[in-house]
Amino acid sequence: MKIGFVGLGNMGVAMARNLMRAGHEVTVWNRSPEKAEPLLAEGARRAATPAEAASGEVVHTMLADDRAVEAVTFGENGILSVPTRAIHLSHSTIGVPLAERLTKAHAEHGSVLVSAPVFGRPAAAEAAKLFVVVAGPDGAIETCQPLFDAVGQKSFIVGDNPPAANLVKLCGNFTILAAVEALAEGMTLAEKGGVAKAKLLEVLTGTIFGAPVYQIYGDILVKDVFRPAGFSAPLALKDMGLVAQAATDTRVPMPVLAVLRDHLLSTIAREGEDIDCSGIARTVAANAGL
Amino acid sequence: MKIGFVGLGNMGVAMARNLMRAGHEVTVWNRSPEKAEPLLAEGARRAATPAEAASGEVVHTMLADDRAVEAVTFGENGILSVPTRAIHLSHSTIGVPLAERLTKAHAEHGSVLVSAPVFGRPAAAEAAKLFVVVAGPDGAIETCQPLFDAVGQKSFIVGDNPPAANLVKLCGNFTILAAVEALAEGMTLAEKGGVAKAKLLEVLTGTIFGAPVYQIYGDILVKDVFRPAGFSAPLALKDMGLVAQAATDTRVPMPVLAVLRDHLLSTIAREGEDIDCSGIARTVAANAGL
Amino acid sequence: MKIGFVGLGNMGVAMARNLMRAGHEVTVWNRSPEKAEPLLAEGARRAATPAEAASGEVVHTMLADDRAVEAVTFGENGILSVPTRAIHLSHSTIGVPLAERLTKAHAEHGSVLVSAPVFGRPAAAEAAKLFVVVAGPDGAIETCQPLFDAVGQKSFIVGDNPPAANLVKLCGNFTILAAVEALAEGMTLAEKGGVAKAKLLEVLTGTIFGAPVYQIYGDILVKDVFRPAGFSAPLALKDMGLVAQAATDTRVPMPVLAVLRDHLLSTIAREGEDIDCSGIARTVAANAGL
Amino acid sequence: MKIGFVGLGNMGVAMARNLMRAGHEVTVWNRSPEKAEPLLAEGARRAATPAEAASGEVVHTMLADDRAVEAVTFGENGILSVPTRAIHLSHSTIGVPLAERLTKAHAEHGSVLVSAPVFGRPAAAEAAKLFVVVAGPDGAIETCQPLFDAVGQKSFIVGDNPPAANLVKLCGNFTILAAVEALAEGMTLAEKGGVAKAKLLEVLTGTIFGAPVYQIYGDILVKDVFRPAGFSAPLALKDMGLVAQAATDTRVPMPVLAVLRDHLLSTIAREGEDIDCSGIARTVAANAGL
Repeated sequence: MKIGFVGLGNMGVAMARNLMRAGHEVTVWNRSPEKAEPLLAEGARRAATPAEAASGEVVHTMLADDRAVEAVTFGENGILSVPTRAIHLSHSTIGVPLAERLTKAHAEHGSVLVSAPVFGRPAAAEAAKLFVVVAGPDGAIETCQPLFDAVGQKSFIVGDNPPAANLVKLCGNFTILAAVEALAEGMTLAEKGGVAKAKLLEVLTGTIFGAPVYQIYGDILVKDVFRPAGFSAPLALKDMGLVAQAATDTRVPMPVLAVLRDHLLSTIAREGEDIDCSGIARTVAANAGL
Repeated sequence: MKIGFVGLGNMGVAMARNLMRAGHEVTVWNRSPEKAEPLLAEGARRAATPAEAASGEVVHTMLADDRAVEAVTFGENGILSVPTRAIHLSHSTIGVPLAERLTKAHAEHGSVLVSAPVFGRPAAAEAAKLFVVVAGPDGAIETCQPLFDAVGQKSFIVGDNPPAANLVKLCGNFTILAAVEALAEGMTLAEKGGVAKAKLLEVLTGTIFGAPVYQIYGDILVKDVFRPAGFSAPLALKDMGLVAQAATDTRVPMPVLAVLRDHLLSTIAREGEDIDCSGIARTVAANAGL
Repeated sequence: MKIGFVGLGNMGVAMARNLMRAGHEVTVWNRSPEKAEPLLAEGARRAATPAEAASGEVVHTMLADDRAVEAVTFGENGILSVPTRAIHLSHSTIGVPLAERLTKAHAEHGSVLVSAPVFGRPAAAEAAKLFVVVAGPDGAIETCQPLFDAVGQKSFIVGDNPPAANLVKLCGNFTILAAVEALAEGMTLAEKGGVAKAKLLEVLTGTIFGAPVYQIYGDILVKDVFRPAGFSAPLALKDMGLVAQAATDTRVPMPVLAVLRDHLLSTIAREGEDIDCSGIARTVAANAGL
Repeated sequence: MKIGFVGLGNMGVAMARNLMRAGHEVTVWNRSPEKAEPLLAEGARRAATPAEAASGEVVHTMLADDRAVEAVTFGENGILSVPTRAIHLSHSTIGVPLAERLTKAHAEHGSVLVSAPVFGRPAAAEAAKLFVVVAGPDGAIETCQPLFDAVGQKSFIVGDNPPAANLVKLCGNFTILAAVEALAEGMTLAEKGGVAKAKLLEVLTGTIFGAPVYQIYGDILVKDVFRPAGFSAPLALKDMGLVAQAATDTRVPMPVLAVLRDHLLSTIAREGEDIDCSGIARTVAANAGL
């Protein structure tokens, strides 16, 4: 398929590469052009603008935050600045209000939005092992299915209204961080009581906690190594802010969310902006005097 | 093996029955004697006192709280009221200070304590699918291994100091409730945003949350049926109180624990004492006006 | 002095009236023009646009939120849409980023911003008993002093950088709600333990809690009457959102703030949008099963 | 009046001295006898046991915690170990269950308990400026009134059931710490936003926060000096534990209480056992990277 890919961070580069490997013809665009070099060397074409990247059948966007998605969509030379029939396949973790605005703008523009945020850290992106959460019109989803298969191990259709996928993704990121926080609190208690963190983790993952979320993050917590960040604390703070926005808009108190945001703030304040989100375990431990 | 079993609640009856099925000769004692009837009909012998139940090689205790364990151990006609060489195999979820006191009292008494709290709801106990977390002297653990195998699907040795097993068990129960709380908060957010709870759960368990803790409790939350209680809210509140005691004693702030305790209190205050601990989801939903 | 007044809600009408009583010549503007009627009857002049209201020496703005302040300042026919030398005296409770933006925009426009948010509920506004928190250039503050005296009982100069006043105001509103929350939690505990709320309040205000914040809100809590709202829960939620924004931007975890936001959300979800912010006491009580 | 005084810590010594100055004949007892020396030099008599201190009309107890009150009341040579008609005037901050137990034990013993916990730091005790919260039988309160007047500036009768006074006292200590926490969070936010803590405090205490609780603790927070402790963090943690016990027993969720306990734990873990309870401000600041 002839597709565009906008946004070449850690995740985006890996996804675009896997799309190329699956035989798709990929035109890329990134705000900092040098990020595109490796892909160009592997056969990608460079677009001069996001609009140009949207000249194929589908244009993927995979960007850091709402502002970046707004810029490439609504900005000068953005995706909606020219007539296009490309399906906008939005992988970024964005807020529900922006997803609603994108849905509406595409409808008015005569094009289609499919929200398809992904679960997985960079290693999973490289291995084409992402999970893709999808919402959008049936036909468009069908068209995009080979693209989901090229980047992920499984896709989930959660409805025909694109913002639903973003809400599910935000709930997922919240649940991940909540699992990390609970692990960190439990491990700190165990450690101060004389039980090794690794021993607690062995029991938990050997009983009813045998899920990747505990295995992946438990391992990071036991090793106590939080750099380089796979999913940085400031990005997680941004996501938790989007969750909070959705919670405020729909009047849902979420006390565990409040703990997570405070611990992300404290972790960033004390450890710096480059730490992984699982570094909240450092804050939990520091608060216990460790 | 000739063994005693003290404490015939939902969990205890199922465990004693599985021990009998595995060929052990079981003498039982319960404060309310009628709870023993079914087991007597199946061939168990009745002891007149906890002390009498401790006349075999091993005496199991499986009771609701610290006070009950203290009563059958230190009380009149308790396990330590007579000379005995029986290994005290303590399955109850008790606090670290009581586990320390039991360890010391047995040492002075010339007997041995093995802490072996279990993970699993009543259905798992009936199916002999419990997970057993064990700490105690090597030799005693070896002796008890067939008993662990009779009641559980797997056992974990976490050290030779019995209280370590109790601390691990408490950390586990904390992590379970934290997972339920996070699920409940996420589901409530999804629901108020127009995404069905079952859909969110499908995505979570299909990605990196594919552990029994999410499957078992997620299913309960989707069905919104919290009675009869498998693990009641007041019992969970008691456990979280034991976690808080350990956290206070070792100076460990645990903000998620605070949320759990408050939600258990609120759930009990609003729904009654007979609700399952996963009924905290009702409080999360009620707080959002659902 | 010849002044303009933009924003005629409960607070604004009372303030504008007191300015007229102090002898100032007041031109008023409000988005819904009918709100101006009473003041016109008392001698005020009506401006056709916010810009026209800024044709005197000073233009006051007293609006509900950031968006409204942006509209009357930066919007079509806004204060900055025409050349003006009027001091912009901003009384609204707005966020620090908007205060910074206003400061910069006025500097570029050749005019001056003075931030002067006020403490006090509508009754205090009517009685000209507000407290005015002021930050801005010295000369401008001197010019405005008679205006502060006309609406308030006392003014505090907190610096020459306008956003400082807004930050102090936000900290104040946070502290007010925190006092209400603590009172509500204490009163609920007392009540469920058999001590009347009024008795607890009598002791607290008779000892080291003899401040208006406890007297005013304690009285509301004892009476359990939260309508009509003097300071509504949605407005308080908006303010706490501004505090959270400042806290996020400067990396400050504020766990009590999280409790307040969750209780405001729950109060609005359960009681409706028209309840006073002190109605969080209803949520505290409901959570205890009262 | 002929009275006994049991418990000569910072608070007790100052209270006993003021009772002597008011003309009462005071017999003292303390576990560590050397603490009595200064009072003996000023004319007090030493009792050999708590029971002996209870041989007058009234016996005051002012001790650190539940355990100490239990020891001097129920222990060997304790107040209830001999027949006595002395009114037991209990000033300690104890839990509601112990107050209930004391009430019952005195009734069975034919004697009377009056609960009379006090508000005030050591400086207030020395200046006879305590506030006394009183509950007990009318006649006994009348008898004790001169004693309240000797140690305090004001007394409050909250009922005839002694535990009511203890509950009110616990609610008060909770409210004090909540005020300190809110101040600390607000000051940290102000400071990181460029506003001096002293400036924020000036505005707050100059408006609707003009109560001693803000003046006394605000001053400590501005100076950032938390040693020597007037009311130590471990004692405050004990008190908050008693509040939590009452809250658990009566099913009252108190989320701000949870924050306070976690911050006391963190403060003790990081700063040591000798810090004042207001040192929670250090934890708030540290969590913000200050």
